[in-house]
Amino acid sequence: MTRSRRAFDRTWAELEPVGRDGRTGGYNRFAWTRVDLELREWFVAEAERRGMGVEVDRNGNQWAWWGSPSDDAIVTGSHLDSVPGGGAFDGPLGVVSAFLALDTMIASGVRPSRPLAIVNFFEEEGSRFGLACLGSRLLTGAVAPEKALALADDDGVTLAEALAGAGIDPRGLGADVEATRRIGAFVELHVEQGRHLALGDAPVGVATSIWPHGRWHLRFDGEGNHAGTTAIADRRDPMLPFAGVVSAARAIAAQTDAVTTFGRIRVQPNGTNAIPTRVDAWLDARGATRDDVDRVIAATTAEAETLAAEHGVRLTIERESWTGVVDFDAGLRGRLLGALADAGMDSPVMHTAAGHDAGILAATVPTAMLFVRNPTGVSHSALEQATEADCVEGVAALAVVLQDLLTRPLASAAR
Amino acid sequence: MTRSRRAFDRTWAELEPVGRDGRTGGYNRFAWTRVDLELREWFVAEAERRGMGVEVDRNGNQWAWWGSPSDDAIVTGSHLDSVPGGGAFDGPLGVVSAFLALDTMIASGVRPSRPLAIVNFFEEEGSRFGLACLGSRLLTGAVAPEKALALADDDGVTLAEALAGAGIDPRGLGADVEATRRIGAFVELHVEQGRHLALGDAPVGVATSIWPHGRWHLRFDGEGNHAGTTAIADRRDPMLPFAGVVSAARAIAAQTDAVTTFGRIRVQPNGTNAIPTRVDAWLDARGATRDDVDRVIAATTAEAETLAAEHGVRLTIERESWTGVVDFDAGLRGRLLGALADAGMDSPVMHTAAGHDAGILAATVPTAMLFVRNPTGVSHSALEQATEADCVEGVAALAVVLQDLLTRPLASAAR
Repeated sequence: MTRSRRAFDRTWAELEPVGRDGRTGGYNRFAWTRVDLELREWFVAEAERRGMGVEVDRNGNQWAWWGSPSDDAIVTGSHLDSVPGGGAFDGPLGVVSAFLALDTMIASGVRPSRPLAIVNFFEEEGSRFGLACLGSRLLTGAVAPEKALALADDDGVTLAEALAGAGIDPRGLGADVEATRRIGAFVELHVEQGRHLALGDAPVGVATSIWPHGRWHLRFDGEGNHAGTTAIADRRDPMLPFAGVVSAARAIAAQTDAVTTFGRIRVQPNGTNAIPTRVDAWLDARGATRDDVDRVIAATTAEAETLAAEHGVRLTIERESWTGVVDFDAGLRGRLLGALADAGMDSPVMHTAAGHDAGILAATVPTAMLFVRNPTGVSHSALEQATEADCVEGVAALAVVLQDLLTRPLASAAR
Repeated sequence: MTRSRRAFDRTWAELEPVGRDGRTGGYNRFAWTRVDLELREWFVAEAERRGMGVEVDRNGNQWAWWGSPSDDAIVTGSHLDSVPGGGAFDGPLGVVSAFLALDTMIASGVRPSRPLAIVNFFEEEGSRFGLACLGSRLLTGAVAPEKALALADDDGVTLAEALAGAGIDPRGLGADVEATRRIGAFVELHVEQGRHLALGDAPVGVATSIWPHGRWHLRFDGEGNHAGTTAIADRRDPMLPFAGVVSAARAIAAQTDAVTTFGRIRVQPNGTNAIPTRVDAWLDARGATRDDVDRVIAATTAEAETLAAEHGVRLTIERESWTGVVDFDAGLRGRLLGALADAGMDSPVMHTAAGHDAGILAATVPTAMLFVRNPTGVSHSALEQATEADCVEGVAALAVVLQDLLTRPLASAAR
């Protein structure tokens, strides 16, 4: 165990300073920025250190190969980008654990029957271009390349421009049937976002499903004016209907099996003594079923329309993304649980409300997820945690699972 | 009139492109930025074109002198900075009109008994450092220099650093008794922010008083977390109490003779799929009397405390600025109205809810204001308007008033 800890610490320490905000301790790792390019260089260096060949697929995702690419490859990995001010583990833990699990297998002399690929999907968080799991959506055809290329960041830079700047030809984007056909099974390890494991004794769990979830952009256009001289009756203040919708969305969600969040706002011009001309707000909604989300969104947007009309404010609502309920492959999950049990690892099963690239891939290939215990449950925050001991257990569990999938017949994992 | 229009257009056209946002047409002219330094150069050039000597006072305000500085000077002018995305007229109209009124007096052979100074006060809007009328507050001692120097912009740059960068010694800041003693009377011309004049026939009005007004900074500290996996019961989402306060402030103000505005917000980390760790919001409140404002603030902050406690969010409230009711000098106002009537100009009197440097100076020296008609009443917005014809009438009215104050005995204007 001591050697595993040292290996984990050493790999982790290299990644730790990249994109970290010295004041908050949070990470700002956004797709195709300088920080992201540094992370991608780290990925290549880790792969080369292990003699793995690295390829960048048509959509900009990175793949490191142990063995020659073929149609029954076992694929693992995650993403290296972060939410604004995000934690250290969300994403990178899956990539780091993949490299370390490979080291474990090499050290124990595993002789694979099929290749292993470690993948780094770009823009999983959607922090820069607004659409989460962008790399895996493009790979599997879950988003049209024309739509993706036109997505722009807050400075108006489009994905097409960002890709071209990083040397990726935007014309190559789109569903990559060849790349997905090679995936015999995909297993993503991720820090748990919640406290399911924290309440028990097991450091590692196995996912059953992901709640359906989506993002809606609400744009309130009012009329900018002087904060002092404009009578209440003359105001068309977009902040008022926005504020009303925030309260309404919470009240509506509280009555259902769903959660809603307004975590991102843009106010223009954002001056203390000026009524805003415009407020843009993003609503994240998730629920146990599609019906739960649909009901919450219908009630919330109806309330938004009413409030906007009351305040003389123009409202436009656009659904920016949607991911239906994901049920991970039952056969593959059974196989993971069996391998872990054989290795003496008790692994509870659980659902999650967090989106993942694995959730996108699940529509196309047999997919499973491992979660590593998070003592506070906090995620998408600088306070996100996982103990070193649990991270090392995660690596061990991933190695057990990958060894099983790489060495025994794959048929039972396929759909 | 044609020559006056040409003169106005020529002067205006030079100033027009500086700090303008090509997309919105709004202005971003913030104190001590590159744009502001360009505006200050323009001020110097206009002064020098008229053979005026320019001085920068201890606090960084610019003064252009027609005649040698002495203790009964007539002072006019305004400010050149803007709110974010502000209009073209708010501030600059007063400075441009001052130079053009001087041209009018020179052309008609006025022989002044005392000097005239045109002043450009810095950071009137408080857009960069948060405290409105900063230049005039420092001049008159309405803010302590230690407090002002520590004010920081959104990037953490302090006023002390910004001043030093512009070549102003921060150690010189503070109440400038010598500079204020020289002011025999101060007259500020400003575009009207409201529709009082738009409803009548007169292009120019005279101010009676300014509503008391202030700014409060509300800081909500919650707990950042994942937007999907965090159960409602586990959330400490600062957006919720903020939104509740926005609605409450409006409902409370609507029952009184006051207005409240939340025009500026900062959300951290501002990610769609993350519950914010922190929301900072600025409340602008103004009322007919100090009691009106006090009542609205007391009720609003009480509601804010309740909401924050309900959501497990820590709230801190700081009053960032306060300006009591301003009653402009009745004697000086009478003299302005007399001079304008003698010139055949009908000038309605009116109060305003907008703060001005004149409101700060009114506590120290006899002060008056002229307002120029605004056809829509809109201000602090790119849509702010004034017709060229009305601007020219404003110049003419200012020239009439200044000529009277410069050539006839000043006793009746003094307190």
